Amino acid sequence: MEQHHLSNWIAKRKARKEDLHALSLFEQLKNGDRTVLSQCITLIESSLQSDQLIANELIKYCLPYAGNSIRIGITGVPGVGKSTFIESFGATLVGNGKKVAVLAIDPSSSSTGGSILGDKTRMQELSTNPNVYIRPSAAGTTLGGVARKTREAIILCEAAGFDAIIIETVGVGQSETLVHSMVDFFLLLMLAGAGDELQGIKRGIMEMADALVITKADGENQLKAEQASRQYANALHLFPPKLSQWVVPSLTCSAYTNTNIDKVWEVIASYDNQTKTNGWFAQHRKIQDKYWLLETLKEKIIGHFFSDAKLLNALKEVESAVENGEKSSFQGADELYYLFTQKKSSDGNGI
Amino acid sequence: MEQHHLSNWIAKRKARKEDLHALSLFEQLKNGDRTVLSQCITLIESSLQSDQLIANELIKYCLPYAGNSIRIGITGVPGVGKSTFIESFGATLVGNGKKVAVLAIDPSSSSTGGSILGDKTRMQELSTNPNVYIRPSAAGTTLGGVARKTREAIILCEAAGFDAIIIETVGVGQSETLVHSMVDFFLLLMLAGAGDELQGIKRGIMEMADALVITKADGENQLKAEQASRQYANALHLFPPKLSQWVVPSLTCSAYTNTNIDKVWEVIASYDNQTKTNGWFAQHRKIQDKYWLLETLKEKIIGHFFSDAKLLNALKEVESAVENGEKSSFQGADELYYLFTQKKSSDGNGI
Repeated sequence: MEQHHLSNWIAKRKARKEDLHALSLFEQLKNGDRTVLSQCITLIESSLQSDQLIANELIKYCLPYAGNSIRIGITGVPGVGKSTFIESFGATLVGNGKKVAVLAIDPSSSSTGGSILGDKTRMQELSTNPNVYIRPSAAGTTLGGVARKTREAIILCEAAGFDAIIIETVGVGQSETLVHSMVDFFLLLMLAGAGDELQGIKRGIMEMADALVITKADGENQLKAEQASRQYANALHLFPPKLSQWVVPSLTCSAYTNTNIDKVWEVIASYDNQTKTNGWFAQHRKIQDKYWLLETLKEKIIGHFFSDAKLLNALKEVESAVENGEKSSFQGADELYYLFTQKKSSDGNGI
Repeated sequence: MEQHHLSNWIAKRKARKEDLHALSLFEQLKNGDRTVLSQCITLIESSLQSDQLIANELIKYCLPYAGNSIRIGITGVPGVGKSTFIESFGATLVGNGKKVAVLAIDPSSSSTGGSILGDKTRMQELSTNPNVYIRPSAAGTTLGGVARKTREAIILCEAAGFDAIIIETVGVGQSETLVHSMVDFFLLLMLAGAGDELQGIKRGIMEMADALVITKADGENQLKAEQASRQYANALHLFPPKLSQWVVPSLTCSAYTNTNIDKVWEVIASYDNQTKTNGWFAQHRKIQDKYWLLETLKEKIIGHFFSDAKLLNALKEVESAVENGEKSSFQGADELYYLFTQKKSSDGNGI
């Protein structure tokens, strides 16, 4: 009994310490300190349990101050000039009085374990602007994990006063869908001309886009870009109308000659205005919140399995049995699931 | 104590009944009875717990008889002529002495709740062939669920003696990746000519393909198809070599004039031969088995939450709180996760 009281007291004291740490970080964050923002994002990316406890508290403090931004997703195949566009677009946003945060989502980093090459040297001019915060892509063990952490990073950036959050996709595959699930406006950058069959635009992505922007519309390429833009505009008519009632435009721009970049921002501002008036903006965020509730819950539940050393050992054994053909993946999953339910019921009082 | 013995006895008796049912189904299945095969697939698709117990037993009986087939994934945008191709290709396989099963994966059915329109009237000629079994796409509540059930359906088809399993993707999006994760050979059907930017082929899919086939290479379209095939063949050279050491070919065919369909089968037979000789075929299946071990396990663990009525009620409450903006998705997930861990530890003896 004594013992029990003592451990309770220690646990509470520890919790208070973490809470104080989180509160102190939050207060520095609210002042818009970019160094603290970086520290905080590193904290939410950490897999250490002690860090995660602080991160959870921190997020709670930030939530009432989050949400007051426009979240812009930007995607396009490699070579479309994403970095150059964001460099120019970010400067335009700052010129319009915005504080800009640029985050990257890179599912490929979960396998390579690192962030994209040259990430720190990208957007060099933009990154020196005091109203801009650029964060290299988060690494993680699962795609869902990377996505959730990016979503938490958005909350932190917003609490730090950044009111235009750019989420950039890096790599190919599922990242577009993930980014789409966490932004208000989804911008698809495209190239005009040669090699359309390798452009890598799947129909699903065009349907997600709130605007198409043909990049590199300068010099000899300008005419081709305008032609492509008209073609895409025609193609867009084939899609059913959006729930947002927003009519998706197709435009051209050049980050090189800095032409029409302001038009892109005008389009987004117009979307912001229109969907806030017709109620879609808030409704869309609620739909996203419900989606993320389920995704976060699922990840936590699965994490419950993967945080148990005994179960992890059992998993390794079953994995090699499956690899050697001694067991089917179905049998293996059944066995591990049985261990999981047994383990949970003998856990005693909570976690 | 008496009570305990009694309930144990009932549980065992029930288990034996299910086992006998599964064994009887298995014996009819082994004879290649297509009606029984349909019943069995319906059983594995059922969400009733009593059905699932029988299905699990059934899968166990089938496993030693499964695996002796070539599993072929077929994908391509709507309009590429997938059904027509499969109709013609299936007949070619039967002509080569194969027993052919055609399964469809349709992630969109999870939202619409139904199978694709006209599914039953598709491939009418092929479906009357006694050596062919065609199954409309499985519906399910989650993409992972649909995929796992399709994978179990493959086992059943193989145990029933079908030795060429065609997995067809329906709809767009993530289904290609899922199909790729469960087949030996991945075939990408493509159109030549107009509207390449809407063709919907993303780079990731081209990299997954083991062969590209340009469809509708007949009449006026033939020349264009051959040109496109050469272009794609050039593009394929840009990709890094495959782990299978297989060199991906690009060819043309016409299901309408029945031209070159046999060439497609020759390519697949050659792949089968080459990768069985160099060991990739078996290694690839092991990699897939390990992947599916984890996916199945994750789905079971998450299912543990969603099979609990109290937790489901709590989820509904939290969902509407999130929808009304009273709670963040992070807070909601935390609360539900806490309930989950509490519930599990008070579960007593087992599930």
